[in-house]
Amino acid sequence: MNISVIEKLQEKFGDHFHTEPTFREQYCQAPTGITLSPPDGVVIVRNEQDIVDIVTFCSVEGLPMIPSGARTSIEGQINAPQGGICIDCSEMNAITDISIEDMTATIQPGVTREQLNEALRGTGLFFSVDPGANASIGGMAATRASGTNSVRYGTMATNVRAARLVMVDGSIANIGSRAVKSAMGLDLLSLAVGSEGTLGIFSELTVKLHPLPEVILSGVCAFDSVENAVRAVTDTLKSALPIARIELLNVSAVRACNAYSKLGLSEKPHLFVELHVNSLSMPGNIALFEEHVHRYGGEVQLSSHPEEREALWVARHDAWWAFHAFYEGCQGIPTDICVPLSCLSACISATETDIANTGLKAPLIGHVGDGNFHLLLMLREGEEETPVIQGFLSRLAERALSYGGTISGEHGVGQGKIKWMPVQHGAALHLMKAIKSALDPHNIMNPAKMY
Amino acid sequence: MNISVIEKLQEKFGDHFHTEPTFREQYCQAPTGITLSPPDGVVIVRNEQDIVDIVTFCSVEGLPMIPSGARTSIEGQINAPQGGICIDCSEMNAITDISIEDMTATIQPGVTREQLNEALRGTGLFFSVDPGANASIGGMAATRASGTNSVRYGTMATNVRAARLVMVDGSIANIGSRAVKSAMGLDLLSLAVGSEGTLGIFSELTVKLHPLPEVILSGVCAFDSVENAVRAVTDTLKSALPIARIELLNVSAVRACNAYSKLGLSEKPHLFVELHVNSLSMPGNIALFEEHVHRYGGEVQLSSHPEEREALWVARHDAWWAFHAFYEGCQGIPTDICVPLSCLSACISATETDIANTGLKAPLIGHVGDGNFHLLLMLREGEEETPVIQGFLSRLAERALSYGGTISGEHGVGQGKIKWMPVQHGAALHLMKAIKSALDPHNIMNPAKMY
Repeated sequence: MNISVIEKLQEKFGDHFHTEPTFREQYCQAPTGITLSPPDGVVIVRNEQDIVDIVTFCSVEGLPMIPSGARTSIEGQINAPQGGICIDCSEMNAITDISIEDMTATIQPGVTREQLNEALRGTGLFFSVDPGANASIGGMAATRASGTNSVRYGTMATNVRAARLVMVDGSIANIGSRAVKSAMGLDLLSLAVGSEGTLGIFSELTVKLHPLPEVILSGVCAFDSVENAVRAVTDTLKSALPIARIELLNVSAVRACNAYSKLGLSEKPHLFVELHVNSLSMPGNIALFEEHVHRYGGEVQLSSHPEEREALWVARHDAWWAFHAFYEGCQGIPTDICVPLSCLSACISATETDIANTGLKAPLIGHVGDGNFHLLLMLREGEEETPVIQGFLSRLAERALSYGGTISGEHGVGQGKIKWMPVQHGAALHLMKAIKSALDPHNIMNPAKMY
Repeated sequence: MNISVIEKLQEKFGDHFHTEPTFREQYCQAPTGITLSPPDGVVIVRNEQDIVDIVTFCSVEGLPMIPSGARTSIEGQINAPQGGICIDCSEMNAITDISIEDMTATIQPGVTREQLNEALRGTGLFFSVDPGANASIGGMAATRASGTNSVRYGTMATNVRAARLVMVDGSIANIGSRAVKSAMGLDLLSLAVGSEGTLGIFSELTVKLHPLPEVILSGVCAFDSVENAVRAVTDTLKSALPIARIELLNVSAVRACNAYSKLGLSEKPHLFVELHVNSLSMPGNIALFEEHVHRYGGEVQLSSHPEEREALWVARHDAWWAFHAFYEGCQGIPTDICVPLSCLSACISATETDIANTGLKAPLIGHVGDGNFHLLLMLREGEEETPVIQGFLSRLAERALSYGGTISGEHGVGQGKIKWMPVQHGAALHLMKAIKSALDPHNIMNPAKMY
C-alpha cells in the first residue's frame, strides 16, 4: 500500500484505521501449513456507511478487502495472502430488533451468538447455532457455520432469514425477506451465506430464533463400538425424537476429556446427548430413547439438572483444549468431513484403522446426527506436515467423497481446503467461478480464498 | 423454427419429437391476462443423455428451451412466449434409490410427489412437500414449491439435498451432496432450486424424507375473527407444538367449501389443523393446543380418525374447485403474498377491507403458519383484468412489501409476476441478472421468465 493510499484512509477513517504491525498481526490466522499473512491495514467499521465507504474505496484503488468478525474461523478465512484492507466488523454489534411474534432478531454483523442469547433472556426464545467459539453472527453466516445442535435446529444455511449485503461497487442488496418463505426469484441469501466474504459483506442480518424447550434432558451413553453408537443415532433420528445434540467421542477423545475435565467416563465410545422436550412428553421420549440405546448394547443416564448439563457441554466444548493438554507439546490440525449417515460408521471405522496404521495421534469428535466428524491430528510443535500426514489427509478427503459426502461440513474452505475444491466439485466449480466473476469481476473481495 | 432444424430434431429424437399443433398446445399455460404461447416443438426426454442432447442442440441453434414436468405451475412457467423447444421430463419418472438410513430418495425429475409417497409405503418415511397438485418433483424444485405442511417440514428450499443440473452448454453439474450439510463453497443447490429452469435443467434429484408420525391428529377450529385465529397460530408456533398443517379459511372460503364439500362448518373464520405426535406425547400436545385456541375464544375438535382427516384435507385441496363452483361462470386469478407472522393479521384485515371496498369476490385461504395466503379473485369468464382488479392487485403487492414480505410465497415468478421483480428486489435484481447472464449468456434457458 503506497503512502497516498494510507493518507487517504487516515483522512477518511481517522483512528479507526490501523497500520501498526502489532495491530495488523492480530488479523491473520491460518491452519497449520499456511503462511500467516497480515493485511496492510485494518479499518474498524462502526456502521453500514463505513462498510460502504471502505468497500467503495478498495474498489476504486483495486485493493483486496477481507471482512472479519470475532476471528474464530479456522481455515484461514481472514488471512490476507494478497495484503489489502481487513474490514473489522466486531464493533458493529447492535441488536436492532427482536420480534417475539416472528421469532427473529435483526442484528449488526459483529453481534456474537452469546451476546444475542444474553439479550434474549426472558423472551422464551434462543438463537440456536452454536459452533463452540463465541463467533460473530456475521462471520457464522459468511462461513455457513453449524455445530452441536444443528441436528435439530439447522445450520446457518437455514437460520438466516434476510440480510443486507454490501456489494463490491458499494451498492446494498436486500436479500431474503422477513417472511418465512419466498418464491420470488433466485435465492441470493443462500448464495451469500457460506460465500466467505468473496461476494459481498453483510451489514445486517435477520436470524431465526427458536422456542426454548420446557425441559432439557442431557446425558452420556457408552457403547462397545462406534458402529453401535451410530446405529443408535440412526434409529433415534428415524423415530423423530426431539434430539437437540448427539455428539460422538471415540476412545482417544474420551481419554483426553476424562483427563482434562474429570469426567470419569468408561474408556469406550460415547454419545453426549441432549433432548428438548416438554414435561408431558418427557417420560415417553425418555423411554423411546433408552430403547434405541439398549438395542445396541449401550448404557444411558439422562438428567434434567442444569449443573450436570452445563458440565457436560463445557467438557464437550473444551475438547480442543483437552486434546492439546493430553498430547502435550503438540498442536492440532482439525479435519471436518461430513458423510451420509448410512456411511458414517464405515467411514469412521476406515479412518480409525488408517490412524492406527499410520501411527498418528488423532482423537475424534463428531456431530454424528449430521454425519459430520472432526479429527484433531496432533503434530509436535514446530513439526511440518509430513508426507505421512499429507497422505492421511488426502485419503480422508477422498474417503469423504467416495461415500458421497463433503470435505468440509462446517469449517469452510478459506485457504486450507482450496486444493480440494476441484476434486469435490468438478464442473460445478466452473459455475461458482462464473458467479464470483460476475459479482466481483476484479477479484478483490477476499481474494485467494475458496478458489 | 425452420425446416432444417425440424428435420434434425426428427432425426435425433424420432417419435419423441412433436410439432403437431394439438400436441404443442398442451404445453402452454399462463395466468389470466397473459397470452398462451405454445412452443415450436416438444421433445419428450427419457434419460439424462436426452436432456444433454436437446440442451446442446438448442444451444448450438440458439433456440429457447423450456423444461416441463407435470404442467401444474400457475404463473406461466412453461409458457413459450419466444417459441423454442419444450423439454418434457414427465417420462423420466424412475425412482433410482431410497435410503432408509439417510432418509433420502434419489429420483428422476418427472417423478410426482404422489408416486414417490406410494413407493415409500411400508418404509415409515414420507416425502413431505405438498403443493396440492400432483406436481413433478423436478418442477417443484424448479419453482421452490411448498404447501400445507411446510410449516413443519419446510419447503423445497430445504427438502432437496443434491441434484444433477444440465447446464446450457450440456455439461452436468453435481450440486449439493448426500451429506446433511456442507461448508465447501457456494450453495449452488439453493440457487438452482427456485430458478424456474432459467439456469439449468434438473436431470436427477435427491430429496429428504421424513419419519411418518405415529399418530396424526386433525381437526377444525372456529374463531370469531381472523385476528384471533392468527393469534392462536402464533402462540402454537411459539410453544413448539408439532403442528404439521395450519390453514386459514376466511368466511367467504368457508361458505364455498361448505357448499362444495358439505362440511357443515359455522360461517366463521376457521383453521384446519394437523398435529404429528406419538401416542405418549399426544394427551399433552392436545391439551396445550386446546389452551391456545381457547385463549382466543376459539372452538376445536381434534380427531385421529383417518377418514375424518382425509375428508378434511380433500375439502382443503378442493377449495379451488369449490370457489369456482360457488362463483359459477367465473374463473379465478390466484394471488400468493407472504408476510411476517407479526403482520399477517393486519395484512389480511386490510386486504379484506380492500375486497369489500372494491366489491370484488375473492375468498381467502392461507398457509398461515408460514404467513402465506392466497386469494382467488373471481372474474366472469372472458372478462379481462379491469382497472379495479389491477388496482387491487397492485395494492396487495405493495401491502406485502410494506410489511416486509414477498409477493410470491410459493407460486413463483414465471411470467405472471415479472413486473413485480424490480419493485421487490431493487439492487438485488441486478445480482440475479448478473448470475443469469454468467450462466446463460445468450438467454435461451426459459427466456422471458422471471426477468
